Amino acid sequence: MTERDAETQRRSGAGGARPTIADVARLAGVSKGLVSFALNDRPGVSADSRDRILSAAAELGWSPNMRARSLSTNRAFAIGLVIAREPDIVAADPFFPTFMAGVETELSGAGQALVLATVTPGRQEADTYRSLALDKRIDGVILTDLRADDERIALIGELGLAAVTLGHPDTDSPFPAVSIDDEAGVTATVDHLVQLGHRSIAHVAGPSSMLHAARRRRAFERAADAHGITARTVETDFSATEGAAATRHLLGDVAERPTAIVYSNDPMAFAGLAVAQRAGLSVPRDLSITGFDNTDLAEHVYPSLTSVATDVAAWGAIAARVLLATIASEPVDNTDLPPARLVTRESTSHAPASPAPTPPAPTKNGR
Amino acid sequence: MTERDAETQRRSGAGGARPTIADVARLAGVSKGLVSFALNDRPGVSADSRDRILSAAAELGWSPNMRARSLSTNRAFAIGLVIAREPDIVAADPFFPTFMAGVETELSGAGQALVLATVTPGRQEADTYRSLALDKRIDGVILTDLRADDERIALIGELGLAAVTLGHPDTDSPFPAVSIDDEAGVTATVDHLVQLGHRSIAHVAGPSSMLHAARRRRAFERAADAHGITARTVETDFSATEGAAATRHLLGDVAERPTAIVYSNDPMAFAGLAVAQRAGLSVPRDLSITGFDNTDLAEHVYPSLTSVATDVAAWGAIAARVLLATIASEPVDNTDLPPARLVTRESTSHAPASPAPTPPAPTKNGR
Repeated sequence: MTERDAETQRRSGAGGARPTIADVARLAGVSKGLVSFALNDRPGVSADSRDRILSAAAELGWSPNMRARSLSTNRAFAIGLVIAREPDIVAADPFFPTFMAGVETELSGAGQALVLATVTPGRQEADTYRSLALDKRIDGVILTDLRADDERIALIGELGLAAVTLGHPDTDSPFPAVSIDDEAGVTATVDHLVQLGHRSIAHVAGPSSMLHAARRRRAFERAADAHGITARTVETDFSATEGAAATRHLLGDVAERPTAIVYSNDPMAFAGLAVAQRAGLSVPRDLSITGFDNTDLAEHVYPSLTSVATDVAAWGAIAARVLLATIASEPVDNTDLPPARLVTRESTSHAPASPAPTPPAPTKNGR
Repeated sequence: MTERDAETQRRSGAGGARPTIADVARLAGVSKGLVSFALNDRPGVSADSRDRILSAAAELGWSPNMRARSLSTNRAFAIGLVIAREPDIVAADPFFPTFMAGVETELSGAGQALVLATVTPGRQEADTYRSLALDKRIDGVILTDLRADDERIALIGELGLAAVTLGHPDTDSPFPAVSIDDEAGVTATVDHLVQLGHRSIAHVAGPSSMLHAARRRRAFERAADAHGITARTVETDFSATEGAAATRHLLGDVAERPTAIVYSNDPMAFAGLAVAQRAGLSVPRDLSITGFDNTDLAEHVYPSLTSVATDVAAWGAIAARVLLATIASEPVDNTDLPPARLVTRESTSHAPASPAPTPPAPTKNGR
């Protein structure tokens, strides 16, 4: 930190009460320049001086003015999370708040801030990354919802930002990846259902443009294929509304009706459960269903939901840790978290001996 | 913007490709000082010069370096949201992601960023506000989950931050409030149930330390009193787990069992629905239930959930707008949004003629 920065800091201090580099220097009996060197951890300060300076800084409650510090180090001390999903889909899916809570546990101790932006995919998304970078608001980003041939990889590189990707992109990437093997969870789900006697299983997938949705779908189809069973997939936008519509579609075809449905997230599974119950089917007697992410509500619905558990909060914490290490130019490797695992609950049981009965007309009392 | 800032900006520009004040001055054929005056909207620039400068800036794609701009204006161009709830409760309640999506719609157009922090209430919370202010990361905060005698009001004032409160604090506050009258929604819920013949209604409340939870509880008790009916309240932490426990407690007392339960949020109502169904009760035949916030899933459970709708996204957008106006020293008033309204669905119906049957032992198939 230069003297000019210290001066800037003094002028912008809250109410003049904030201690400055000069105050620290006075108390420690050294020059301001030496204080600056010590506080910025540069070489050339004796251990004794450093101790005296750090004690003085602690005693005065000195903390760096982040903006002055940013100008002298060219760092923002903040990371960005740009979510490109429709707001109502973000709100309906507990993944993001859980993930962010994990990120926060890592950032708060490190004096780093999280800058959040919600955008519509496309032009607005690219503009948002550009201004976050040009305004020097962030040093790096966590890239979520990786897409096929993801144009953000090149953009982030051009902007000179650090990054970490959740999962592996399908293109070359200079950024470390932090991944959870969700395929293991999907495979375990299909294995579990086949063991229960199911031979006709459907998958309600997320949008194939999202790599993790496509990966889960491929894992589902591979597992079904390995067991030689009938498998159908319906693609959705991950919303409860489309999850319900997909379920109505699958249950409407009585001749081909699946005995089990594997949903790619929990909100769609909750909606599917309601559609089945409304159609007069009993879950799991007539139809087994499973979710993904093992959200808080999974154990609080009736029947409780069999779901694939990933430690989303840990994913957030580790992604943040890897990103901070990258920003600090420390060497980092790709990180693989423990694979997703199946949590079996009441919503899955033995396949019905005979096809489920034709559903009665839905009852609509109360509206 | 001073020449020193422009110089700073040039040095910190990404890869040297970024246009500077000097580039704009050269293209417009004026001095750098005049460019600075025009771009900062100061007096003393002729209309003709201003036009030429703004055209040149637009042509070059010039945008201010946020940090240099921050130093010259003493502003961060960002607002803060510090959420003091346990991470799993934040994750289970769609309120915050929906609210943040609303905030974002307002910020993105204004070139402002949202800085997010999740903290445990108490010491860590106060420290977080302090460092966000001292580091000049934010110009103001949105205060959510107001508490009785909320110590944050004074803290924010001391720190020199602007603020907007969601709802009215119970102490003197120098900050504008943006409020939704949720009492109207609670009153409408009780009126609706009484009209359906319910005379024994219970309320599963949030923590009374949160003003909005306490306000809903008072509105419930006042409405029940006005109708002269039996009312009981069980307090929870707003989580689905405690919502389920409260429901088991209320249904366990067969002699005093309520015929309707009014929950203070949707996740607790979903959990309560499952507890009732697991106990062999039919909703709404044996028990009517209602939620609060009308989350996405409310129409996707079976039976669909009667809930109180508040426009949470609009609340976020308007709170952000009022906060930005406050930061810009524009005069602002308290804002009252349209009151909460009841959305009736399948989970509420006529009170049972006789007390509900004693529930059979719960069946626990599948685990």
